[in-house]
Amino acid sequence: MVKRITQSLRRPKMKSVNQPPGTVTYVGRKESGETSLEVIDYNKENYERHISSSTEDAFKFEAEDRITWFNIDGLSNTAEIEKLGKYYDLHPLIIEDIVNTTQRPKIDEYEDYLFIVAKMLYHQDDKLVNEHISFVLGKDYVLTFQEAGGDVFDGVRGRLEKAYGRIRTNGSDYLVFALLDAIVDHYFLVVDELSEKVEKLEEQLFESQPSDDITYEIQDLKRAILRVRRAVFPLKEVISRFQNLENDLIKTRTKNYINDLHDHILQVSENIDLYREMAWGLMDMYMTTISNKMNEVMKVLTIMASIFIPLTFIAGIYGMNFEYIPELQWEYSYFVLWGVMIVIFLLMIYYFKRKKWL
Amino acid sequence: MVKRITQSLRRPKMKSVNQPPGTVTYVGRKESGETSLEVIDYNKENYERHISSSTEDAFKFEAEDRITWFNIDGLSNTAEIEKLGKYYDLHPLIIEDIVNTTQRPKIDEYEDYLFIVAKMLYHQDDKLVNEHISFVLGKDYVLTFQEAGGDVFDGVRGRLEKAYGRIRTNGSDYLVFALLDAIVDHYFLVVDELSEKVEKLEEQLFESQPSDDITYEIQDLKRAILRVRRAVFPLKEVISRFQNLENDLIKTRTKNYINDLHDHILQVSENIDLYREMAWGLMDMYMTTISNKMNEVMKVLTIMASIFIPLTFIAGIYGMNFEYIPELQWEYSYFVLWGVMIVIFLLMIYYFKRKKWL
Amino acid sequence: MVKRITQSLRRPKMKSVNQPPGTVTYVGRKESGETSLEVIDYNKENYERHISSSTEDAFKFEAEDRITWFNIDGLSNTAEIEKLGKYYDLHPLIIEDIVNTTQRPKIDEYEDYLFIVAKMLYHQDDKLVNEHISFVLGKDYVLTFQEAGGDVFDGVRGRLEKAYGRIRTNGSDYLVFALLDAIVDHYFLVVDELSEKVEKLEEQLFESQPSDDITYEIQDLKRAILRVRRAVFPLKEVISRFQNLENDLIKTRTKNYINDLHDHILQVSENIDLYREMAWGLMDMYMTTISNKMNEVMKVLTIMASIFIPLTFIAGIYGMNFEYIPELQWEYSYFVLWGVMIVIFLLMIYYFKRKKWL
Amino acid sequence: MVKRITQSLRRPKMKSVNQPPGTVTYVGRKESGETSLEVIDYNKENYERHISSSTEDAFKFEAEDRITWFNIDGLSNTAEIEKLGKYYDLHPLIIEDIVNTTQRPKIDEYEDYLFIVAKMLYHQDDKLVNEHISFVLGKDYVLTFQEAGGDVFDGVRGRLEKAYGRIRTNGSDYLVFALLDAIVDHYFLVVDELSEKVEKLEEQLFESQPSDDITYEIQDLKRAILRVRRAVFPLKEVISRFQNLENDLIKTRTKNYINDLHDHILQVSENIDLYREMAWGLMDMYMTTISNKMNEVMKVLTIMASIFIPLTFIAGIYGMNFEYIPELQWEYSYFVLWGVMIVIFLLMIYYFKRKKWL
Amino acid sequence: MVKRITQSLRRPKMKSVNQPPGTVTYVGRKESGETSLEVIDYNKENYERHISSSTEDAFKFEAEDRITWFNIDGLSNTAEIEKLGKYYDLHPLIIEDIVNTTQRPKIDEYEDYLFIVAKMLYHQDDKLVNEHISFVLGKDYVLTFQEAGGDVFDGVRGRLEKAYGRIRTNGSDYLVFALLDAIVDHYFLVVDELSEKVEKLEEQLFESQPSDDITYEIQDLKRAILRVRRAVFPLKEVISRFQNLENDLIKTRTKNYINDLHDHILQVSENIDLYREMAWGLMDMYMTTISNKMNEVMKVLTIMASIFIPLTFIAGIYGMNFEYIPELQWEYSYFVLWGVMIVIFLLMIYYFKRKKWL
Repeated sequence: MVKRITQSLRRPKMKSVNQPPGTVTYVGRKESGETSLEVIDYNKENYERHISSSTEDAFKFEAEDRITWFNIDGLSNTAEIEKLGKYYDLHPLIIEDIVNTTQRPKIDEYEDYLFIVAKMLYHQDDKLVNEHISFVLGKDYVLTFQEAGGDVFDGVRGRLEKAYGRIRTNGSDYLVFALLDAIVDHYFLVVDELSEKVEKLEEQLFESQPSDDITYEIQDLKRAILRVRRAVFPLKEVISRFQNLENDLIKTRTKNYINDLHDHILQVSENIDLYREMAWGLMDMYMTTISNKMNEVMKVLTIMASIFIPLTFIAGIYGMNFEYIPELQWEYSYFVLWGVMIVIFLLMIYYFKRKKWL
Repeated sequence: MVKRITQSLRRPKMKSVNQPPGTVTYVGRKESGETSLEVIDYNKENYERHISSSTEDAFKFEAEDRITWFNIDGLSNTAEIEKLGKYYDLHPLIIEDIVNTTQRPKIDEYEDYLFIVAKMLYHQDDKLVNEHISFVLGKDYVLTFQEAGGDVFDGVRGRLEKAYGRIRTNGSDYLVFALLDAIVDHYFLVVDELSEKVEKLEEQLFESQPSDDITYEIQDLKRAILRVRRAVFPLKEVISRFQNLENDLIKTRTKNYINDLHDHILQVSENIDLYREMAWGLMDMYMTTISNKMNEVMKVLTIMASIFIPLTFIAGIYGMNFEYIPELQWEYSYFVLWGVMIVIFLLMIYYFKRKKWL
Repeated sequence: MVKRITQSLRRPKMKSVNQPPGTVTYVGRKESGETSLEVIDYNKENYERHISSSTEDAFKFEAEDRITWFNIDGLSNTAEIEKLGKYYDLHPLIIEDIVNTTQRPKIDEYEDYLFIVAKMLYHQDDKLVNEHISFVLGKDYVLTFQEAGGDVFDGVRGRLEKAYGRIRTNGSDYLVFALLDAIVDHYFLVVDELSEKVEKLEEQLFESQPSDDITYEIQDLKRAILRVRRAVFPLKEVISRFQNLENDLIKTRTKNYINDLHDHILQVSENIDLYREMAWGLMDMYMTTISNKMNEVMKVLTIMASIFIPLTFIAGIYGMNFEYIPELQWEYSYFVLWGVMIVIFLLMIYYFKRKKWL
Repeated sequence: MVKRITQSLRRPKMKSVNQPPGTVTYVGRKESGETSLEVIDYNKENYERHISSSTEDAFKFEAEDRITWFNIDGLSNTAEIEKLGKYYDLHPLIIEDIVNTTQRPKIDEYEDYLFIVAKMLYHQDDKLVNEHISFVLGKDYVLTFQEAGGDVFDGVRGRLEKAYGRIRTNGSDYLVFALLDAIVDHYFLVVDELSEKVEKLEEQLFESQPSDDITYEIQDLKRAILRVRRAVFPLKEVISRFQNLENDLIKTRTKNYINDLHDHILQVSENIDLYREMAWGLMDMYMTTISNKMNEVMKVLTIMASIFIPLTFIAGIYGMNFEYIPELQWEYSYFVLWGVMIVIFLLMIYYFKRKKWL
Repeated sequence: MVKRITQSLRRPKMKSVNQPPGTVTYVGRKESGETSLEVIDYNKENYERHISSSTEDAFKFEAEDRITWFNIDGLSNTAEIEKLGKYYDLHPLIIEDIVNTTQRPKIDEYEDYLFIVAKMLYHQDDKLVNEHISFVLGKDYVLTFQEAGGDVFDGVRGRLEKAYGRIRTNGSDYLVFALLDAIVDHYFLVVDELSEKVEKLEEQLFESQPSDDITYEIQDLKRAILRVRRAVFPLKEVISRFQNLENDLIKTRTKNYINDLHDHILQVSENIDLYREMAWGLMDMYMTTISNKMNEVMKVLTIMASIFIPLTFIAGIYGMNFEYIPELQWEYSYFVLWGVMIVIFLLMIYYFKRKKWL
């Protein structure tokens, strides 16, 4: 059986029907397990990081004059998330979107904060994970809500801790940019993997004997590309709107970075569409491969049958038991017949050679 | 015979020709039967629900300081609907669109009210129903006109009765939003069903022996997706216009909810297009499956014929009745011939093995 | 031979080259015959209808305080049309477009009148007719120029005569709307016919033995859809511009009706594209049908050949005339051989059963 | 060998690389030969036409108060064209575009003149010619530069000479309109030819025995349509910009004519896309034709083999030389066997009849 | 094995993940080797050119009142590039994009300079090279950063040295235009090569015996076109924005040239899409070629089998050893049988002739 890339990309079913809008129901992967909270407080001079498992504990870490990054892993404990939502005065619809892991990427502007939904694509234990993530960008805080533990932000954490680059001197808007940038950078990794898969399949088709399973692998690749595309493409519009937002939360000096991010997401999108078209082409190649093979099979059959069926007929003639067949008595008949048969055989071979079937 | 999903989705014929515009002719499913009226009167403190079969009766339930939701099931009794239209001063074209079940989703702004047409997709008795529904949103009333009994609003009714969520404290615009939200939520269910169908067919194609009927099932699925798409896609534009309307009927606090609704309809649309592309891919997979099977059939034929036709020819040679065939007299001819035949047989097998046909 | 729908839809050749623009040359179906004139004069109280064959006669029917609808059937008598054009002061380019039946639908705004070109699709003597029609909408007159007798306006004529609906109380703009509405209503009929054709062909493909002609029928249907599409789609833009025109000729109360008309033309267009996609799908279905049939043919051949070719070989062995074939003398050889053959036969059957070819 | 339409449509290679922009290098068909100049001077009352071979000669024909149309045939003599360019103060980039016959259609607005590039498609000596043409529209002059002798302007010349229509009374803008109109009118001729080709091929496919060359003819037609499309489509935008230009060179009364021209180019474009889609459909039809033929061939083979292979096996049985075959001695064996064979034969025929293969 | 065009077009992997934005990491072809610097200083009267290997050396060549073109070949020595960036005060994101050779074409406007990224396509040692190039356009300087030695700018260098054309009298904006123009001119060469490849493959398909490798060549061509398209298309937007920029760096007189450049890039893009569509069509042609060949093979088999299988059956009949076969004794049986066989043979030939299989 073919191992499918797409299996881990499949999304859970949609939010439950007949609930009022704003109902906070967790819809996601069952294994998301415990909710854990990580608080990173920083400014140019200071950096503190705390792990906690209750929201109340977490709040006390917040210090003045610092940017606070509040990262929540695991969305099944909706009570904690609602507590956090109350503390930061989040709109009920935001809370609903945070825990609804089927929500597509979007950006919403509220009075005091921006709300951004995205999808992280990354590898964990050799599987491709499609993880729902939400951002709330406030004046001096950033909240991130992830479906489960494990993310693509270790680079950002390291730069925060070691004060590497501009990240500690810039505001909360730069932090959100840096996190989105990390997400988009990992898209490149995923797309590179797709491109390798395309090229591997292509190599197999260039060989003369691709396995029959290749059609399923191609279909699976096509599907994987469609799903990755669906996670990535809406973010293009989100970043474009993020780029053009007239909002005090986003400082001018961050704009250049967001421009750059927009370039990157465009590039990922173009790559996805390129590999998509190539993957579609693979199917065509496979069809011609099959047709060519069938053609070859038919030629072998036709050549064998066309040569031996007439010869068998001739042999059949002289196997008849008529009493008066004059040739039967002649001494050299047998040898002459062999000669005739060899001539017919050679004529057939010549005919097939001229038709380039041999 | 294949059971088709689409049968119940087929729309009746268009409105009758040669009628002046604004003519109120019921065009719809024959079985829609009796017209029944349901009046729900509510404000923050009170809630009343009445069922009636005559419009005049219904009017008396209307109370002051309350929002009135007037729900009509069954459109064949056009007289009652015209009475209602007169009472609420509806434009004749609106009445025409209410009873013309082929009308596509749209939104029209009139002086005192908004008029919205949509399609409900839901399951009833294991069949997928595509039901025409119209909304009239006034300052303190909402009229809904459904083609037949049965709808997707039980959740909304429950929340109204139990004052659950914000529904009793918000205005008529929120009620229309809640009803549209219920419709879109049910689209998700329908789309999930399509996705399961896609995956089921895919599983069958992964097996080596899909039934021949699968081509009709794929076509039927493609058609079902096209029809669902046609019911859903125009609503995207309707909700987008609903979202951007500058109209006193829609309060600011409801806007966020409509934004959210717009996100959902976009998500449904994207899903539909994803499954559509997958369904189209199924046909390709099926074609390669057929070609592969034909290839296999041809190989079996070619191998059998290529091995036995030459051997039969050799046997035919020594079945000839010539008087002078020297080999016939030699004692070991028969055994030597068996040897030759076995060698030929093995060479053929080797040849086919090397060609990877065996 | 297959009867083709499209034949009657084919347009004549384009206007003759090397003529100055504004040259009035009739380009159309030869059979359009005589030009006949119909004048309908009406206001709220009065209604008169005259048939005449000369323009001069017709002018005298015009009465004050009334709307005049001047309908010309047959465009080959260009002199009469030019006379009319002079009377109403029409721009030469309009006259050219009136008699050039290949002109695509359009709307042009002139100082004192609007000029609209459309295509009527309707059935006449069991043939689908694609007839060129032009409208000139003035303050108190409407001119319509039709390629030939027979049209889709009998419903409008009836309502005018019997003062049914709003048609006698509204102005010339409402009359043009009513005529366009009649045209669009007939599009629905044509599209319904296409949908029935699609479904009929589909039924045939669901049967196991569609005739070979079906491929021509599908192609013909595809072509018919393309041609209908080409007659209908430009009108979408025309009506959209008609709807948004800031022009005193179009009264506010007519706007709602034109909105409605725009909805209808959108709906026709969507239906056409739906049936178009279905028609394209039919070809795919047919191809898989052929492939399936070929597969079945090949299986029968392979089974017959694979069973009997080896058996014939065995029979051939013992038909050889070697003097020393030990088996020939043994008394039970014949019966043993039958046994062996039956075993081989059964093994083959079992093999094909397991491969699900039987 | 198939005669290809497209050969004469192929464009020469692009302008030579490593030249500074504005370099005047002739890039075109080698056979364009001599440059010849034609000067037409006209106003309402007067008309003069001169042919000359040197630019200096030509200038002296220019008269006051008249419109001068300066038409150059042949672009290889770049010196003469540069002289003309200096005289009329043309920008160097214009001169480059005039002689670069690969330049796509465009319109450029300069201070004192408009520059328009288009492609003429017409028949010359039974070949379809794609000729590069440039227009310079000044206040009282029009310059046209053609790649070679022969054009589509004889109708315009005739109307100028005979003062037929409005051409002598309107300005230079009307002349450019008239010339573009002549070009677009000839597009209709070319498109009609394509449509006839589509229909001819379709007729051939309707016959049961299309030649194998038809696939090349279809491909050639598809290519021809692509090339015509490429010559025609950019002009659509050019005329649309021409129509909307706010420029004193274009008088109001000419606007209506340009509108009309825009309608025509839209119509040509729609026709091209219609025939394009039909041409693509032809390939599908051809593929099903091939598949149907193959199906028929296979059926004949299968029927013949399925009937005679078992019968031959039976005959083979009784050709064996076993000493104890009881049937051989029985007097009626031979006749009974014939009976059995005829029964088998009839059963096979019945089986194939029921499968509708016969 | 098929030589593939695309191999040299493949881009390296994306920039390394987990780096802060603005990190200067070289991502490119390993062989880019040494960094070399070329400084060209010029004004109307003077011209100087220096080659240096250190940035500091290079700075001293800069003279007043002149335009300086600073060209860097080789991006792996990031330290030198950062030095240059500091000298010209370039934003860190620009430096990152300069050395990230996977960056797609773009244009960014900064306060004192414009930043443009493009891709050069040209031939070097018979291989198609896709080289990353960045431009910084300042008031009196132009910086160009190339991935490796070798470029398409020799024509520009020659015109600078020999003061040919307008290049020495116009500003830095004209120089950037001239360099971009050289890049686009080379696109034409690449596209011409693709067009020749398309035509070569087409010729091969027109022959009756295209090699089986042609399917890989077609796929390779399709891929090459996709990759060239991806290098070229984003530049279309870049030049369009360059054209419409309101920026003091771009003088009015340069605008006309940029317009012209925009025309050229549009033309390249159209050509690419034309050849793309043709390349897609090649696959269809190949499929019909295969089908036609298979058809022919099948006909030969069917004819041979249909003629000789029945005749062999007849011979088998009279090879049976029944004791009572009356025909065997009759003297002329053998000759009559030959007659019967010849008649059957001729009937079969006639049948196949009538079916046009022969």
